Amino acid sequence: MRIATFEINGRLQVGTVADDGASVTPLALAPEDAARGALALIEAGGDLPAAAGAPIALADVRLVAPIPRPRRNVFCVGRNYHAHARELSGSVFKSAGDEPAWPIVFTKVPDCVVGPHDEVRLPLDVTREVDYEAELAVVIGRGGRNIARADAMGHVWGYTIVNDVTARDVQMRHQQWDLGKSFDTFCPMGPWIATADSFDGARTRVRCWVNGELRQDASTTDLIFDIPTLIETCSRGITLYPGDLIATGTPAGVGMGFKPPKFLQPGDVVRIEIDGLGTLENRFV
Amino acid sequence: MRIATFEINGRLQVGTVADDGASVTPLALAPEDAARGALALIEAGGDLPAAAGAPIALADVRLVAPIPRPRRNVFCVGRNYHAHARELSGSVFKSAGDEPAWPIVFTKVPDCVVGPHDEVRLPLDVTREVDYEAELAVVIGRGGRNIARADAMGHVWGYTIVNDVTARDVQMRHQQWDLGKSFDTFCPMGPWIATADSFDGARTRVRCWVNGELRQDASTTDLIFDIPTLIETCSRGITLYPGDLIATGTPAGVGMGFKPPKFLQPGDVVRIEIDGLGTLENRFV
Repeated sequence: MRIATFEINGRLQVGTVADDGASVTPLALAPEDAARGALALIEAGGDLPAAAGAPIALADVRLVAPIPRPRRNVFCVGRNYHAHARELSGSVFKSAGDEPAWPIVFTKVPDCVVGPHDEVRLPLDVTREVDYEAELAVVIGRGGRNIARADAMGHVWGYTIVNDVTARDVQMRHQQWDLGKSFDTFCPMGPWIATADSFDGARTRVRCWVNGELRQDASTTDLIFDIPTLIETCSRGITLYPGDLIATGTPAGVGMGFKPPKFLQPGDVVRIEIDGLGTLENRFV
Repeated sequence: MRIATFEINGRLQVGTVADDGASVTPLALAPEDAARGALALIEAGGDLPAAAGAPIALADVRLVAPIPRPRRNVFCVGRNYHAHARELSGSVFKSAGDEPAWPIVFTKVPDCVVGPHDEVRLPLDVTREVDYEAELAVVIGRGGRNIARADAMGHVWGYTIVNDVTARDVQMRHQQWDLGKSFDTFCPMGPWIATADSFDGARTRVRCWVNGELRQDASTTDLIFDIPTLIETCSRGITLYPGDLIATGTPAGVGMGFKPPKFLQPGDVVRIEIDGLGTLENRFV
């Protein structure tokens, strides 16, 4: 099943997306719950609310991020595909060539999340080195602490796509990455959440195009640390909550990996597609 | 003025602390607002609500963190006192001796905040290298983006104390620090917020004792990056919101700076005092 959060007539609603991807059927949620998007469903747990009305053509709504504002910073994983580890060794990743024994985990502020077709604002007064990072993100369902690898998949509610937009110079000059990853609008998310029963995050294809040019193309089978390991890592001593998001890292092909680097310019359109999940397409302005 | 959040008869209330520190006078807040602590006042802006009842002896209440759950991760600054930069050069701080041109900024999850006298749980199954870091924290009042140094103090609502508790091995093995800083209960905060009109964060004394032994003792005049610079840095391209917290970094004297290191053990009591602000005292269990 695919759960979308959308705006129609100035109000947020949450609904199920039809198999053909052409329409969305709203679910019966109080307005204050619907304003929190899919997070309201995830926190409530159990079965989905009943449908509330007829299907609406997707063309007639504005999709917003499935979780418009996560309840805290988004956990993000760095250097989690082998080829990407190589392309940024010696620049972003200091210990050239060495793959880490432990995942690199940083965060993005929840307020930088925007919808799957929203504009991303380039903060040109701050940086000229903005880069894209196509990523599969895991949405936590049941919370917990010290979740073992073997139990981890039982804590996954679903999956979505994020673009972990990054200002490379800011990322590096502060040594810790959170600031360079957290500029306003730097976390496009969507187009919806595919629930865990309907999607296999462990083997799917992640692709990213910039202005129609294919830049990233990899399978999540190439993850250095798989999804259960990431959940085990983030929950080690730290309670995870329903609706927490873990972005699983980006494949090779980011702008910084080119010589010279290909950073994003005003007007560029970044399109990310994950097979079975859908498409995120954002114009940078 | 000093604003405390406290629990009495199983309910949270927010109040003003008397000059002699012996009592707290509750403010008129709806229960759902009081449950958010001082954050409700900060977000509402303007004048404080009226008093609601007689002063209550502080001995008869349980102080909780002034903002029991921040609205997103707490911004934290690393390596911001010269002597501390030296003591951890070559271990936590890789570029030995060099002071950074830009502040190091990482985060702690909001859910690890606990009260000024609560127990901190050592996750002994994960780490044996837990360390204390006494810090002055700035509470943002008016939000904003691209706040200039010259305007920054107008965005400060007040100040509180945090202990930026850190698992050193976890901090370093993941390269990015957020996980090693975010274990459950790893952010004692309080005892209250001193409002900006009543406290000078730029020149006060920060001290920390472990089991009565003085370990850290410095003046905030020794900050490498002062408070206006930190606000300018965190708000560069990133909108700050009312109630955001910026922990300003810790002085020399952390456990890891000793040879051999003095990490915290079950039963240890860490007491942090900032002149004019008050005391945070937490037992590690």
